[in-house]
Amino acid sequence: MSDIKYSFGLWTVAWNGADPFGTATRPDIDPAESVRKLSDLGASAFTFHDNDVFPLGSSEDERRACIDSVKQAAADTGMVCEMVTTNTFTHPVFKGGAFTSNSRDIRRFGLRKVLKNVDLAAEMGATTFVMWGGREGMEYSNSKDLYTAHQRYAEGIDTVAAFIKARGYDMRIGLEPKPNEPRGDILLPTIGHAIALINTLDNGDIVGVNPETGHEQMAGLNYTQGLALAMYCDKLFHIDLNGQNGPKFDQDLCFGHGNLLDAFFTVDLLEHGTPNGDLKPYAGYRHFDYKPSRTEWLPGIWESAAANMQTYDLLAAKTAAYRADSEVQAAFKDAGIAESAVPTLDNTDFDAFLAEPDEDIEALAERHEGLVKLHQLALKHVIS
Amino acid sequence: MSDIKYSFGLWTVAWNGADPFGTATRPDIDPAESVRKLSDLGASAFTFHDNDVFPLGSSEDERRACIDSVKQAAADTGMVCEMVTTNTFTHPVFKGGAFTSNSRDIRRFGLRKVLKNVDLAAEMGATTFVMWGGREGMEYSNSKDLYTAHQRYAEGIDTVAAFIKARGYDMRIGLEPKPNEPRGDILLPTIGHAIALINTLDNGDIVGVNPETGHEQMAGLNYTQGLALAMYCDKLFHIDLNGQNGPKFDQDLCFGHGNLLDAFFTVDLLEHGTPNGDLKPYAGYRHFDYKPSRTEWLPGIWESAAANMQTYDLLAAKTAAYRADSEVQAAFKDAGIAESAVPTLDNTDFDAFLAEPDEDIEALAERHEGLVKLHQLALKHVIS
Amino acid sequence: MSDIKYSFGLWTVAWNGADPFGTATRPDIDPAESVRKLSDLGASAFTFHDNDVFPLGSSEDERRACIDSVKQAAADTGMVCEMVTTNTFTHPVFKGGAFTSNSRDIRRFGLRKVLKNVDLAAEMGATTFVMWGGREGMEYSNSKDLYTAHQRYAEGIDTVAAFIKARGYDMRIGLEPKPNEPRGDILLPTIGHAIALINTLDNGDIVGVNPETGHEQMAGLNYTQGLALAMYCDKLFHIDLNGQNGPKFDQDLCFGHGNLLDAFFTVDLLEHGTPNGDLKPYAGYRHFDYKPSRTEWLPGIWESAAANMQTYDLLAAKTAAYRADSEVQAAFKDAGIAESAVPTLDNTDFDAFLAEPDEDIEALAERHEGLVKLHQLALKHVIS
Amino acid sequence: MSDIKYSFGLWTVAWNGADPFGTATRPDIDPAESVRKLSDLGASAFTFHDNDVFPLGSSEDERRACIDSVKQAAADTGMVCEMVTTNTFTHPVFKGGAFTSNSRDIRRFGLRKVLKNVDLAAEMGATTFVMWGGREGMEYSNSKDLYTAHQRYAEGIDTVAAFIKARGYDMRIGLEPKPNEPRGDILLPTIGHAIALINTLDNGDIVGVNPETGHEQMAGLNYTQGLALAMYCDKLFHIDLNGQNGPKFDQDLCFGHGNLLDAFFTVDLLEHGTPNGDLKPYAGYRHFDYKPSRTEWLPGIWESAAANMQTYDLLAAKTAAYRADSEVQAAFKDAGIAESAVPTLDNTDFDAFLAEPDEDIEALAERHEGLVKLHQLALKHVIS
Repeated sequence: MSDIKYSFGLWTVAWNGADPFGTATRPDIDPAESVRKLSDLGASAFTFHDNDVFPLGSSEDERRACIDSVKQAAADTGMVCEMVTTNTFTHPVFKGGAFTSNSRDIRRFGLRKVLKNVDLAAEMGATTFVMWGGREGMEYSNSKDLYTAHQRYAEGIDTVAAFIKARGYDMRIGLEPKPNEPRGDILLPTIGHAIALINTLDNGDIVGVNPETGHEQMAGLNYTQGLALAMYCDKLFHIDLNGQNGPKFDQDLCFGHGNLLDAFFTVDLLEHGTPNGDLKPYAGYRHFDYKPSRTEWLPGIWESAAANMQTYDLLAAKTAAYRADSEVQAAFKDAGIAESAVPTLDNTDFDAFLAEPDEDIEALAERHEGLVKLHQLALKHVIS
Repeated sequence: MSDIKYSFGLWTVAWNGADPFGTATRPDIDPAESVRKLSDLGASAFTFHDNDVFPLGSSEDERRACIDSVKQAAADTGMVCEMVTTNTFTHPVFKGGAFTSNSRDIRRFGLRKVLKNVDLAAEMGATTFVMWGGREGMEYSNSKDLYTAHQRYAEGIDTVAAFIKARGYDMRIGLEPKPNEPRGDILLPTIGHAIALINTLDNGDIVGVNPETGHEQMAGLNYTQGLALAMYCDKLFHIDLNGQNGPKFDQDLCFGHGNLLDAFFTVDLLEHGTPNGDLKPYAGYRHFDYKPSRTEWLPGIWESAAANMQTYDLLAAKTAAYRADSEVQAAFKDAGIAESAVPTLDNTDFDAFLAEPDEDIEALAERHEGLVKLHQLALKHVIS
Repeated sequence: MSDIKYSFGLWTVAWNGADPFGTATRPDIDPAESVRKLSDLGASAFTFHDNDVFPLGSSEDERRACIDSVKQAAADTGMVCEMVTTNTFTHPVFKGGAFTSNSRDIRRFGLRKVLKNVDLAAEMGATTFVMWGGREGMEYSNSKDLYTAHQRYAEGIDTVAAFIKARGYDMRIGLEPKPNEPRGDILLPTIGHAIALINTLDNGDIVGVNPETGHEQMAGLNYTQGLALAMYCDKLFHIDLNGQNGPKFDQDLCFGHGNLLDAFFTVDLLEHGTPNGDLKPYAGYRHFDYKPSRTEWLPGIWESAAANMQTYDLLAAKTAAYRADSEVQAAFKDAGIAESAVPTLDNTDFDAFLAEPDEDIEALAERHEGLVKLHQLALKHVIS
Repeated sequence: MSDIKYSFGLWTVAWNGADPFGTATRPDIDPAESVRKLSDLGASAFTFHDNDVFPLGSSEDERRACIDSVKQAAADTGMVCEMVTTNTFTHPVFKGGAFTSNSRDIRRFGLRKVLKNVDLAAEMGATTFVMWGGREGMEYSNSKDLYTAHQRYAEGIDTVAAFIKARGYDMRIGLEPKPNEPRGDILLPTIGHAIALINTLDNGDIVGVNPETGHEQMAGLNYTQGLALAMYCDKLFHIDLNGQNGPKFDQDLCFGHGNLLDAFFTVDLLEHGTPNGDLKPYAGYRHFDYKPSRTEWLPGIWESAAANMQTYDLLAAKTAAYRADSEVQAAFKDAGIAESAVPTLDNTDFDAFLAEPDEDIEALAERHEGLVKLHQLALKHVIS
């Protein structure tokens, strides 16, 4: 096991296998037990939704007992609670959304549920608060006023951020984009849409994104490229790693069990930044949000949890060797990766620039960057 | 013919039918002739790439003659040139991108080509300058430094915006997102990604988006919802209407010939804003970026051009009736559309808000908004 | 209400709204009550899975009481039970499949459950027996021996067909393809794959397909084209109509609420056959397999059920007008639809055929079939 | 280099980079030169379309000179021409299809072009004749009579098969499915649809499929699973290996450069058959149908050609180790792979079978096949 710091959502290993066409295939798991088992497997941290730990509607005593049980497990094992998130999707009251429900009463219930959970997150020592608005969407484009819905969504997020500031918590928000499922279309469907909305907020400085591998791939998008944009915008506040096989239902496979080459490039980006050095390695936990396949009985829960870390470890070693390979470095140079870091213009004297003769484009068109060869070098590092 | 102001790209009707597996099925068309024909069909405006009008490598005299021919057609017909864009994708020199090419020489050639075309756009009276970076992407995630590539892209866009300001032009930039094709993955794949990058620019105030129906749908995204986010961010600066049948190659069908229900909601949004009134109707031209199917001989060019406007006209009339229908208005009310406009919080007294008792969520969960019924009312307006 | 004969699965209106991220939003509905309500709304027939009517594990007395209750409702209303199907996907025992489970005990349980239900289907007077193998698949390509799995699947289907013949029932089997969900990949993912396997069976003469609109569209395929292939192969034995918005999770929207233009062409095919007359109208029930959106409270169940029939009725009227339109008929002629019915060869004298001079392909390449115009005529019929 | 027999289409390395948005980035390549270079790189065989070797409209002398040049290169190098195919998609005459064109003249031209090429295939010693009907489709569902179109398609294929038999050639036909591009929807979109139509033919015994990795993946389908169905139906007559990243335009990447895990399982199936031994290794050539990326100058052509074989070689070695690994064999056993080969029924005494008591399904539901663990073992073989 490497010294990479891994984190797991408690809901991941606790998934009982209920899906749209079938009932649970596994019994429920005690969250404190999950903390201990994940620690045994080598994880450093955990995360949770409020209702992963205590049921909705718990009395304060019940809630406290559940929380204390998890805290004890954390204390016993040294596991850190690095992120907390709120369930605003399971109960039928959220069927039309929480922050964007057309019902003001439901919006208020949802927002209060989230704010209370921010306090819990602070109590647990979490420094990231994730919000996935899985029900903030629609099946039909006229189910919501599409302008007002974005307005209410922004109001809700801004309120949570203002609350964090008012409380003085050392905490940032990570919005989790997803294009669809469980709604036909979800608001903030991609990394880009989420950052676009964040930029309209009063308190957007503490709001970033928590991109999930499979969610971007459900829209056919390149996850690693999306991470790079988020990092370019200084908005990659948290990360959800898993596996997916393209545009279909949300599979939540183990990391690497979907698009393996993209997983290699994701690890390469997170562990080493980009080749030119302007982007530094990712500092946060390597957090997995996956599901043990429904086919698995209890042993499969922990076999799959371990698989996530094993694959990441293996790919981390592969990417280190890839970066250190002189043939790869030479191929980067041939491709012009370093040259891309030179600004295009020297200054803003536009007239002088326009007066320059055009470059010899026929000669430039014969440029050979060797991009297939470079990719094949990466692939050989993966499979050799 | 309605009094809606329609605009067409000159490259649309001029497409000769060459595709990845076949050669041209139609001869070239003179751009000035296209301006006249589109005017005859009822369009009000046109748009073009530099090399739609004059070939790359033209002498200044040739270039001037080509431009003057189009200007004459515009003068004769009253057609307005509302937008100009630059071809930075056809010539092989752009095979690795223009603004994000790893080659500084190619970046400089591309940027100079764009800046020269900004001057032409101003001369033509265009107030929008569109940039589609179709080659700004990659097939393999290691073909570019993903951080540097965003940096170069931002530098290029910011330069064009600074140039517009320096020249004192009344002109705004519209970035056109696309997820893929012709590159395996394109930078700025969706409306959201483009707005996210714009927010990092020094001159982002005059940079917005030009979303194309099919491009968003190629990522499985809801186009109308994307338009609403762009309008919420005050970034919908131009629009490309066409048709597409989901995630596959870029079809560029006539508007309405793909997802007809989404076309209805797009027209509804553009013509009437959103029901609560905070979003006003779209003020710009209804601009079509489509291709006459390759199967068509010359008559099909104009039959398809007319089809775009005819369909939009029909849907505009349908949406007006839909908005005026008292049954629809009652269904909006039942759904809580108006209620969604009431802010969720009255004030920022968080402690008071948290101290309130929770709403009766079991009762709220039985809320019936009648969303299927509302959608069926819309569908009946479409097909009745 | 037209005189078109509509049928509904009892599981459709009974869906309680539980989805991968949320619990039920509606109470259970008594199946007999559904039969009565659907009759009131204008349906002619119903269909069901065994466990839509009686729970798995019912005693024979309980089972009989449940069945009798439904039979009474059918008798009271005149509703016909036209199709029966078996639930081999909900219980965790089926997590790895029924006919293709690696466990022989599970395969035997699944097959016995199906055979018993064939007897019930016959008792109910159903003439179609549908089999959807939703769990017959895998998340990982090594979870099954891919050859043996097809062998076991074929054995299971062939056994059911042999059983029907042995019992002397007037009944045919309809296999229902689906590409994925709930499994990562499902065996027999499309209409084509199902027919291909059928052709390997000993008793394939009574086995055909039951294609669902959304299932084919989840693979980005043209549903109407798929129906035509099934009819060309004489294998369209039943039909599941609903709505879907492309490759994403299985939405089960109302018919027409997804791809409306494809819905028009589906109705056109089913009601009128194809223009050249070789394909006759579809003779079976127009059967809906959809879900009332999870957002809906009880009234939405019946509003959505009615919407399916209303949309089909409207489209049936539209397609009748479209076929009767002399402009459309002229456009068919211009397109060469009738000419396509003339065999390409007169005889099999290959040498004579090869000796003929080639056609003038440059002239033929200028052929104008007016396909955009023809499509626009269809679209105008839809929205005028 | 292994002793695996690799084959390449001459059109692959000869692709000049023209795509829907750009002109050629590379000069044309002489086909005979390609034969020599591919031989140098280690390939054993080649394939071609008629017009890869001689232009459409060549005089008989020109045609003969071109063919002889390729034959000489084959003779010099020992390269085998294992398959020939016909271009019925590039010239505008085929814009509406060849075998399914609505124009009988065009159908006759297309069919004659194909039959002449069958004679050439025989002359070249090819034992497989591939037909990809890339233009046999439509943008709009009313562009063809969907029944008649299938009828004409079947007539065309059957004619070619009858011709092969009449000539006494030792040759089989491989139909190549594709869901879309260049047409909006293509007839015979998947492996399944092609086999379904084949089963309606008089001469279907010599007609099978030539599935391409990317074509199935463009529909979101599992390629390896599709191959297994084709082999189960005894219809895998040829194979096209390449890479693709899910539902988008046809990328034609190098083999393994798309979905790497699926590439592993494809190689595993082709090299070793399935674990239970009923399916034998694939006997034909490992044939690549890919494109050197448009970004590449001339060296990239051969670097990418070599990459296909290198990746296949590496994966072949990996799959051999995977099959030989006792831990994998134990995991197969735990999963029940061997058990799946036992027929579900002992005999067809249905009454006895129905009289048996049901299995203990609650106990069976706790079955643990260890499928995630098994998949992780495969992944470790790939990346270790």
